[in-house]
Amino acid sequence: MARVVVEVMPKAEILDPQGQAIAGALPRLGFEGVTDVRQGKRFELEVGDDVSDDQLASIAESLLANTVIEDWKVVRVP
Amino acid sequence: MARVVVEVMPKAEILDPQGQAIAGALPRLGFEGVTDVRQGKRFELEVGDDVSDDQLASIAESLLANTVIEDWKVVRVP
Repeated sequence: MARVVVEVMPKAEILDPQGQAIAGALPRLGFEGVTDVRQGKRFELEVGDDVSDDQLASIAESLLANTVIEDWKVVRVP
Repeated sequence: MARVVVEVMPKAEILDPQGQAIAGALPRLGFEGVTDVRQGKRFELEVGDDVSDDQLASIAESLLANTVIEDWKVVRVP
């Protein structure tokens, strides 16, 4: 078994209202110095040793991310 | 300026229906070999150089994670 992390983040050119709301709330709550926040998703997958990087890329691209508005990255955890 | 990533995941003892739905859908969609999926959140923060690790921990704990059901981790990106 192997552990794989898939990171899914909104593309740079896409507005991120959730992240903007957090960035706007921080100074009101007394936290200064944070200039930008982007919110995305993080998936932890337990996969068999026979699952290839190509298969993981297909899973990320077709099921975990909306590639119109999101970028994704697959990271195998050692 | 520094880039900081905050990873927020459901605690191990907490059910994760989103992750379970994904794990259940994968075989139907032709992807075999994935035995478990957990879905969490990932935040990318742009912070000033004077923001301390303690402040980042406070932000993660009080604003980004629900510590009743979620674990969080702050990672400074080099």
